[in-house]
Amino acid sequence: MTSLLHEPHHDGSPLYVGDEVPTLGWSTQVRVRTAADDPVEAMWIRTTYDAEPTFHPCAVVAHEGDTVWWEGTLPVHNPVTHYRFLLAHGSEQRWLTGAGVSDHDVPDAFDFRITAHAAAPDWGRDAVVYQIFPDRFARSAAADERPTPHWAVPAAWDDEVVFEGSDPHTPLQFFGGDLDGIVDHLDHIGEVGATVVYTTPVFPGESNHRYNASTFDGVDPLLGGDEAYARLSTAVHERGWRLLGDLTTNHTGDTHEWFTSAVADPESPTRDWYYFRHDGSYECWMGHGTLPKLNLAHPGLRAAMVEGPDSVVARWLRPPYDVDGWRIDVANMTGRLGRVDVNQEVARALRATADAERPDPLVIGEHNHDASSDLDGDGWHGTMNYSGFSWPVWSWLRAPETAARPFGRPVQVPRRGGPLVHRSLREWLARYGWRAASQSWNILGSHDSARIRTVVGSGEAQRVAAGLQFTLPGVPMIFAGDEIGLEGVLGEDSRRPMPWDRPDEWDRETMATYAALARLRTEHDALRRGGLRWAHVDDDALVFVREHPAGSLLVAARRAAGPEIELPSGLLGLADGTALLDTSGRGEKLAAADDVVTLPAVDGPTLAVWAL
Amino acid sequence: MTSLLHEPHHDGSPLYVGDEVPTLGWSTQVRVRTAADDPVEAMWIRTTYDAEPTFHPCAVVAHEGDTVWWEGTLPVHNPVTHYRFLLAHGSEQRWLTGAGVSDHDVPDAFDFRITAHAAAPDWGRDAVVYQIFPDRFARSAAADERPTPHWAVPAAWDDEVVFEGSDPHTPLQFFGGDLDGIVDHLDHIGEVGATVVYTTPVFPGESNHRYNASTFDGVDPLLGGDEAYARLSTAVHERGWRLLGDLTTNHTGDTHEWFTSAVADPESPTRDWYYFRHDGSYECWMGHGTLPKLNLAHPGLRAAMVEGPDSVVARWLRPPYDVDGWRIDVANMTGRLGRVDVNQEVARALRATADAERPDPLVIGEHNHDASSDLDGDGWHGTMNYSGFSWPVWSWLRAPETAARPFGRPVQVPRRGGPLVHRSLREWLARYGWRAASQSWNILGSHDSARIRTVVGSGEAQRVAAGLQFTLPGVPMIFAGDEIGLEGVLGEDSRRPMPWDRPDEWDRETMATYAALARLRTEHDALRRGGLRWAHVDDDALVFVREHPAGSLLVAARRAAGPEIELPSGLLGLADGTALLDTSGRGEKLAAADDVVTLPAVDGPTLAVWAL
Repeated sequence: MTSLLHEPHHDGSPLYVGDEVPTLGWSTQVRVRTAADDPVEAMWIRTTYDAEPTFHPCAVVAHEGDTVWWEGTLPVHNPVTHYRFLLAHGSEQRWLTGAGVSDHDVPDAFDFRITAHAAAPDWGRDAVVYQIFPDRFARSAAADERPTPHWAVPAAWDDEVVFEGSDPHTPLQFFGGDLDGIVDHLDHIGEVGATVVYTTPVFPGESNHRYNASTFDGVDPLLGGDEAYARLSTAVHERGWRLLGDLTTNHTGDTHEWFTSAVADPESPTRDWYYFRHDGSYECWMGHGTLPKLNLAHPGLRAAMVEGPDSVVARWLRPPYDVDGWRIDVANMTGRLGRVDVNQEVARALRATADAERPDPLVIGEHNHDASSDLDGDGWHGTMNYSGFSWPVWSWLRAPETAARPFGRPVQVPRRGGPLVHRSLREWLARYGWRAASQSWNILGSHDSARIRTVVGSGEAQRVAAGLQFTLPGVPMIFAGDEIGLEGVLGEDSRRPMPWDRPDEWDRETMATYAALARLRTEHDALRRGGLRWAHVDDDALVFVREHPAGSLLVAARRAAGPEIELPSGLLGLADGTALLDTSGRGEKLAAADDVVTLPAVDGPTLAVWAL
Repeated sequence: MTSLLHEPHHDGSPLYVGDEVPTLGWSTQVRVRTAADDPVEAMWIRTTYDAEPTFHPCAVVAHEGDTVWWEGTLPVHNPVTHYRFLLAHGSEQRWLTGAGVSDHDVPDAFDFRITAHAAAPDWGRDAVVYQIFPDRFARSAAADERPTPHWAVPAAWDDEVVFEGSDPHTPLQFFGGDLDGIVDHLDHIGEVGATVVYTTPVFPGESNHRYNASTFDGVDPLLGGDEAYARLSTAVHERGWRLLGDLTTNHTGDTHEWFTSAVADPESPTRDWYYFRHDGSYECWMGHGTLPKLNLAHPGLRAAMVEGPDSVVARWLRPPYDVDGWRIDVANMTGRLGRVDVNQEVARALRATADAERPDPLVIGEHNHDASSDLDGDGWHGTMNYSGFSWPVWSWLRAPETAARPFGRPVQVPRRGGPLVHRSLREWLARYGWRAASQSWNILGSHDSARIRTVVGSGEAQRVAAGLQFTLPGVPMIFAGDEIGLEGVLGEDSRRPMPWDRPDEWDRETMATYAALARLRTEHDALRRGGLRWAHVDDDALVFVREHPAGSLLVAARRAAGPEIELPSGLLGLADGTALLDTSGRGEKLAAADDVVTLPAVDGPTLAVWAL
């Protein structure tokens, strides 16, 4: 039998790369595994050395059952070093890149890459992130004491959300969740298994989403102000967790003190922090006049926002707020406008500022298409991986008749079979590079998108989606409420208040699955740092191995009822197939017979994980 | 019948893009053609606007036989604007990128791109370039008067070249060709149909190749000195042709005055123009101590070499030398060393300097793998397209038993069938973008590689290769001697002196084919500016249409005997299939019958071109 396990394989994980963060100017060992019956006779690493292709031989260093291990020495001459492998037999040649094996000469777009820049902090890579939209998570007792702000349309906690973009109430409907409300519910977050609390913006802004900041100097009094933020930080850190903020580096609100000063006085020092035209109009985010765009090419703004200990970026990382890092809003557009592009400078400066404040900050940049050119340097550690994770998973699992709408596209994500989804997952991972992809966030939905439950239409399908979120490379980010099966057809609708007072509506089976997945991820290095080797793909099944020296796992995601799946046991490296998790509840063991391992047939959507 | 002609198509040519050099901040119309029976119901342009994906609708604007034309408005917001098309029918979606149609979500690597930066000058895009390695092209009468230099090993014109890299004579064997020798043979170059004379370096260097310059201040006296260069320039320009120089921006020779001064005196102003280490050793090209690497991050060197009217780049573009532009040696490595990367700054500065000297200079950068990230800006107009043209064509046409060796790889280019070669051609063109690809040089070989004749093994196969060189998008560059069938198994061997005195050895049939192809290219806009739509590909056939409003051409390249090929006449847009060129000599007309056009069977390697 042949399977995907017969393909030559390399990735950036410890079984394949000697030093994940090599020293610039030195070299590192890299390995490729091939099947013993692969015809390969000779192998070379091809890297680009100051953009010149050079070839370096590999040699067989071990035979291990049906596997042959090849190894070579990769010079790490540039901070981001690109490489691929040339496999030859007779006069035939194949290339092995991050997108797999190619039998034609391919451009360098999918080459493997390794970077000498520091990795994201361990806590960020090992995290389970819990995203909170403060207005909708929970109200503390103090919330009742606060007057409704002048701009807001008050809502009771159980009201339906207004979510049509054309309705002016959408950004103004105010439920009044606050930071002490989050503190009140940390036990819940702990039950889900999260280790990082990430809140969307806490700076004041005249909207329920607060992405239109009026200042970066203080926390919104409607959320409890600076003191409440410090309390949240203390409570989060007391549990050994981390706290992430959300910063709009691309724009402010039109009520921001920098902007109102710039409008009032053309001589204001902040005038050139924005892009005013001669007629007094100004650049703004996607044409929204309430969101004037920041000019990060201006050194004054750069200092105020990004650079040095007095910058916004730095201040909140210090006690008493002690934020552990930032999620950067619209990171893709930050510092870019027409012919201006200082994005990478800003990303680099922002990370350097954070590094100067804390030993281990995390910086994640929002990016909603191919972020590869922004990710492999010394800027954002990773991205919110919609393109390389969310959309492929959505397209595999979406219910045909769902009303869920993705954001940013004029059409639904289509329903696709496993082979197409597999190709997307593989190409995007290749494009981002191993480390940036595995440091990025696996998102099934966010405050900007439909809810995964609405996309896939059932709890059992959602549990398969969650399974992929926790078992594919990347850091799972749960949008608060997903774990109990909240719904929403698009971003604004997904911002439904947590139904603390309606526990009968909670999908507790799904919440238990999230918790089990979080435990599994914590317990197994393979899920946090292991490689990704594909074993089997068909329309309704995605089966892969997460490989790690400390033990490997086999994951089988099935979107529908389906037959047994046979895999070659030798290439799988099966020793013992104990089921660690099975959303169908059966948890059958695996065992090899006649060199074949047979995965059980399933009755419907199922995700199962076995220890090998 | 279905064929590649049924695929939705877009490229950067005039039928598909309203304004090839759009104005930044404005927009341009873009068009897609689909087959009338294609299921597409709706179409959008997806572009990235300051790196944010945005969608813009397309509408059907014309039906033309079996073809439907869609059109949309593409905002040109960034100097290099990336875009692709989303095609939807029912719940199905396809992407159309430069690499073709994809039914899965693909990263942005192959997106179309359009640039607001100026295009290469018309003369450069319409050129047929003739590359001359001066030591081996021709000796003028004056050459006999010159003494052999101290470093050289003299050779008689009919001697065999020494070409093994391990032989120290390889770079020292001196045949004594000179610039007046070129002037003596311009009629020959005219017969071949070339319009640009490009010589490898003419600055003195202690080698036959002169890539180890001793100075950039004067032309090598062994070539006739400055006066001879001026004479060559005058003679070339009198014919309405152009002259290109060759500049080593990456390194000098170790005999260069800048370097000897730097070695002699650590306080020398040129010391920091190189990369000296504390122990007195220095960075050099690929470990060759004779080629010390230049530090283009140093403002002094930048001014001396690249920037401003006193720079090397500028001086030779002025009378009496009046060089029309530069081929930049090792452009890929220029300005790059480990963590330093000022490559794009240098490329941009170099082009700006040239633009300041002449109304229409051309700058071509040598690059021997994926040059895409260096090509779409305002630096190099194009590259020597080994990766996207030479290697695919070699792999399709190489004789199985050839001894020809490519450069830069540890193995032969493999022999591959049409479908794999087609994929490579398509992906590389996509990666470079339409304009950079069509401004780049289609090379069948150079002074750095085996000769095409030795690669393909016969005149008839070489004529097919030449046919592709002149009919695929890109500017043909002929290495002097290819046109008469000279051989060479690798770069140094390919530098054989032109056998002016052995006319019986010339392959005149091949030379006539080059001349006919050059005429065809001159006469047909389609070959110089037309689009590229693939019609049929099988192992032994590559058939495509070059489309242009002034008239389209059909090209059929066959590497072996093969049967008739049927194409759908409606999608081909066949009006009249007059043969313009047929290397088999038959020149059959084409005519549609029952909606099918039948290309004739062939007896062996053949290239044929028909006017549609």
